[in-house]
Amino acid sequence: MQFAGSHILSIQQFEREDVEQIFTIADRMVPYARRERITRVLDGAILGSMFFEPSTRTRVSFGSAFNLLGGEVRETTGFESTAIAKGESLYDTARVLSGYSDVIAMRHPKEGSVAEFAAASRVPVINGGDGSNEHPSQALLDLYTIRSEVAARGRPLSQLRIAMVGDLRFGRTVHSLCKLLNLFDGVQVVLVSPEALRMPADIVESLRETGHDVLESERLEESIAHVDIVYSTRIQEERFNSQEEADLYRGRFRLNQSIYTHHCEPNTVIMHPLPRDSREHARELDEDLNDNPNLAIFRQADNGLLVRMALFALILDVVDQVDTHARDVGWYTAGRF
Amino acid sequence: MQFAGSHILSIQQFEREDVEQIFTIADRMVPYARRERITRVLDGAILGSMFFEPSTRTRVSFGSAFNLLGGEVRETTGFESTAIAKGESLYDTARVLSGYSDVIAMRHPKEGSVAEFAAASRVPVINGGDGSNEHPSQALLDLYTIRSEVAARGRPLSQLRIAMVGDLRFGRTVHSLCKLLNLFDGVQVVLVSPEALRMPADIVESLRETGHDVLESERLEESIAHVDIVYSTRIQEERFNSQEEADLYRGRFRLNQSIYTHHCEPNTVIMHPLPRDSREHARELDEDLNDNPNLAIFRQADNGLLVRMALFALILDVVDQVDTHARDVGWYTAGRF
Amino acid sequence: MQFAGSHILSIQQFEREDVEQIFTIADRMVPYARRERITRVLDGAILGSMFFEPSTRTRVSFGSAFNLLGGEVRETTGFESTAIAKGESLYDTARVLSGYSDVIAMRHPKEGSVAEFAAASRVPVINGGDGSNEHPSQALLDLYTIRSEVAARGRPLSQLRIAMVGDLRFGRTVHSLCKLLNLFDGVQVVLVSPEALRMPADIVESLRETGHDVLESERLEESIAHVDIVYSTRIQEERFNSQEEADLYRGRFRLNQSIYTHHCEPNTVIMHPLPRDSREHARELDEDLNDNPNLAIFRQADNGLLVRMALFALILDVVDQVDTHARDVGWYTAGRF
Repeated sequence: MQFAGSHILSIQQFEREDVEQIFTIADRMVPYARRERITRVLDGAILGSMFFEPSTRTRVSFGSAFNLLGGEVRETTGFESTAIAKGESLYDTARVLSGYSDVIAMRHPKEGSVAEFAAASRVPVINGGDGSNEHPSQALLDLYTIRSEVAARGRPLSQLRIAMVGDLRFGRTVHSLCKLLNLFDGVQVVLVSPEALRMPADIVESLRETGHDVLESERLEESIAHVDIVYSTRIQEERFNSQEEADLYRGRFRLNQSIYTHHCEPNTVIMHPLPRDSREHARELDEDLNDNPNLAIFRQADNGLLVRMALFALILDVVDQVDTHARDVGWYTAGRF
Repeated sequence: MQFAGSHILSIQQFEREDVEQIFTIADRMVPYARRERITRVLDGAILGSMFFEPSTRTRVSFGSAFNLLGGEVRETTGFESTAIAKGESLYDTARVLSGYSDVIAMRHPKEGSVAEFAAASRVPVINGGDGSNEHPSQALLDLYTIRSEVAARGRPLSQLRIAMVGDLRFGRTVHSLCKLLNLFDGVQVVLVSPEALRMPADIVESLRETGHDVLESERLEESIAHVDIVYSTRIQEERFNSQEEADLYRGRFRLNQSIYTHHCEPNTVIMHPLPRDSREHARELDEDLNDNPNLAIFRQADNGLLVRMALFALILDVVDQVDTHARDVGWYTAGRF
Repeated sequence: MQFAGSHILSIQQFEREDVEQIFTIADRMVPYARRERITRVLDGAILGSMFFEPSTRTRVSFGSAFNLLGGEVRETTGFESTAIAKGESLYDTARVLSGYSDVIAMRHPKEGSVAEFAAASRVPVINGGDGSNEHPSQALLDLYTIRSEVAARGRPLSQLRIAMVGDLRFGRTVHSLCKLLNLFDGVQVVLVSPEALRMPADIVESLRETGHDVLESERLEESIAHVDIVYSTRIQEERFNSQEEADLYRGRFRLNQSIYTHHCEPNTVIMHPLPRDSREHARELDEDLNDNPNLAIFRQADNGLLVRMALFALILDVVDQVDTHARDVGWYTAGRF
C-alpha cells in the first residue's frame, strides 16, 4: 500500500509486505525509543489525539511516539465534553478537528466510528480502537513482539507455534492478531478458552483457510507445552451482562512460574496485551512470573512505541528524514531499557 | 489600541482599525495554517489554556494556533478539579497560574469572570467565552470569514447584506457579531427568529443607531432571498428551562439545498458558529448542503486558527518575527485544505 | 546524595548539603522563570505527568517547569480512566508508563503508592504528593521561600523564627517543612492550632531533639509577635468526618492587615501553601493583606517553578548545560514578575 497520507483503520488493509515494511521501520526507531539518539524530524507537526473512550496506555503511547519524533500533541479525552453531545455529527466533528492537526489518533466506543470520522477528515487518521472492532496498532505491536522474541531465541517465524489463552470471544486483540497471522504461512495456533468464550467461528475458519493448524482446547497445561508463544488475555468483564457472569471465568486459566516450569518448553515467551488483572480472583498471569526473562509483556508495551513511531513516519512520509534530524541526547538516560 | 501585553476580553475594546489590523495579520498566517511553511517564532513560549467549562473545538483551536506559532500548551479543563472548589478566589487562582505561562486563553461559565481573572493576571488573557457574555475571538473569526467570502465573490464589505437565523436571544455569537458590525457602515441585517427568541432590543437598537438597516422576521424563505450571508444558529437548548421548551423551537428554521436553490441568490454564503445540531428534530442546516461550495462553515472554523494566531502574535508582539522564524515543512501535508 | 537518575520521594532522603545544592540550582533558574532568557536544554525530553488525584496548581507547575527547560509533557489525570480500575497493579502501570517518558511527576491519593510506583519505574520519579504522606517539592519551595525572604530582609537563616498557624494535624506541608527544618540549627518554632488540630507529637519531638525551640499555643496574636515568618494554613476540611466538624475550626485563626499592623514586627513575612480559603467562614488570610508587600504567598508559588526546574535539572543531570542552551526571549514579557 501507499502509506503517505493514508488512514490506518484496519489490519485488513495490509498486505504481508506492508507489515514487513512497518516492522523494518520500527526496527530503525529503536535508538530513538531507547534514548540513544533523539530526532526532531516532526518538529512543528501536531498530532490530534482524540480518545472519546479512556485508554491511558494507548493514549500516552501514541502521544509519546509523536513526541519522540519531535512533534506536538493536542489531546481531547472523554465524551460529554464534546460537541457530539449537542447533536454534532461525526462528519462535522471530523471536518473541524482535522483542520487543527497534521495527523489524528482516535479511539471511540462505537464500532465503525473511526472509519466514519476518517472519511470526513482532511488529514490521516489512525484507529486507536473502535469498540470491539479494530485496534490495528495493537495487532501490529503484538506481531512485531512475536517476531522479535522468536528471532532472539533463534527460531523461525515461518514455523510459529502460539497458544492464545483466556477470553477469546471478547478479546479484540486476539481477533486482530489472528487476522494478521493470516498474512503468514504455517502457523500452529492453540486456542484455549472456556466453551462460552471461544474464538468466533469465522476467525477460526479463516485461520484454517489460510492453511494454519488450529486446535481448540479447554485445558491450559497441555496446550502450552509445545508452543513458542503463550498469549494470555484478561477476561473482558466490562463486556458481560453482569459481574457474576464475568466471575464465572475470571481465574479460570492461570499461568504461574510453577506451571511454566513444569509444562512449557525452555524459553517459551509469555505475552499479554495488558492490563493484566492482578486482583485475587483473576491473576491470569501470576506476579511470580515477573522475574522470568521470558515474560515479554513489558517489552511488548515498549514495542508499541516503535510501531506507532513507524506508522507516523510512514503516513507523514518522513522515514528517510528521521536520521538526518537526529542528534545526541544530553540528559540522563541510564536504565531506561 | 496597543496590542502588546493587552488582554482580549471584549469586542467592545476594538476600534475598526484594530479589527482591520487583526485581519491583516490573520491573512499573513495563511501559509502557516495551511502547512505551506512552519514558523517557530514562539518556540519556548507557554500558553496556559484554562477551560473551566468544556469546549473541545475552541480549546483545541487555541492550542493548535499556539503550536502553529511554535509554542507549548499547558491545559486545565473542568471545574471540580481546581482549587476554586476549596474556596480559592479567582484573584488567587489568577495570581498563581499566571506565573506559569506567557499568555492565557480562558473559558469560564460565569459572566465577567474572565475579566476578573485578567485583572489579577500577570500575563495577557484572551477571553475564550465567559457564560453568555463575550467570546471575542469567535466574533472576529465570523467577521473575518464574512470579509473573505464576500471578497472571493467580488462583492464589497461596505454594502454587506446578512441574515441571522435561529436562536437570536441566547446565541452569544450573533450578539457579538452585531456589536462588531457596529464598527462598519451600511450593513443590511435581517433577523429571523421565533418571537420568543428575538435578538435583544438593545442590540437591535444599537445597530439602528449605527445607521444599519435592520429588519425582523419570522419567515425564513423571503428573509434569505436578497442577502450575501445566511448566518444560521443552533437553538441553545441548554439555556432553556426544559427540553420541552427548547423543542418548541428546534427545527423551526431549516435551510436545505432545495430551499437554497429556490430562494437564495447564486453564491449566497452559508455560515454557522458550530456545532450544528444534526439530530432529526433540529437540522437547522441540512447535511444535503455539505457539497454546496457556498457552505462556508468549515472554512469558518479554519479561520479560527488564523484569527487566534493573529491575536497571539499581536499581544506577544512577534508579528514582525513570524516570517524570520519560518522554514519549509518536511512532512506530508497534501489535502489539508 | 547522587541526584542523577534518583527518585525524589521524601524529604527524609536529603542531607542539608543536598537541600543547599537544590537551592543554588534554583537560584540559577531565576532568569529562565522570569523570561529574561529561555533555555532549550531538555528539547526532546518527555515528562510523564501522572496526577491520579487532581491538583491543578502542582500539576501545571511541574509541567511548566519542564517546558521552561525545553521539554515536552504527556499528562494523565484522574483515576477511573486508568487500567488500575481493571485490576492492574501499580507495578505493571509503572513498568509500562515509565517506558513512555524520561522522568515522571506523580500524585496519588494513597500513602506510599508513589514509592511503590517508583520501585518499578525505569525512569526517575518525583513524588508530587501521596495522600497525607509526603510532598517533597512543596517543602523545598517553602524553605526556599523562607531563605529568600529572610535574606531579602537582611536576616540570617541561622536564627529563624517561624509561627505555623492553623490545621497542623492534617496539613501535610507543615509536617514536611518541620522535617526539613531538622536539617538546620537554632530555629524557634511557634505552633498555633486548636487543641484538636495540634502538630503530631512525633514531629514536635523531633524538632526538640534537633535542638529547636518549640512553643505550642492556641493564641494567634501573641504567637506571631516575634517571628520572621507566619506560615498560615487552610483547615483541610476534606480530611474531617463531616463538614460540621471542619466548620468548628474554619475561621478560628484569621490574620488580617489590622492584626498584622498591631502585633507583628515590621516586615514579618506571610506565607501559605495555597489554596487559601477565601469563603466567608474561613479567610485564614484576609484579602486586605493583598497589597501588603510582605505577603509572600504568590512569590512562594512562583518559587515552585524554580525548585521544580532545579529538581529536573539535577535528576536528569543537565545542570551544567542549562546556560549553554540559552537564548534571548523574542516575545512580550513585561510585567511577568
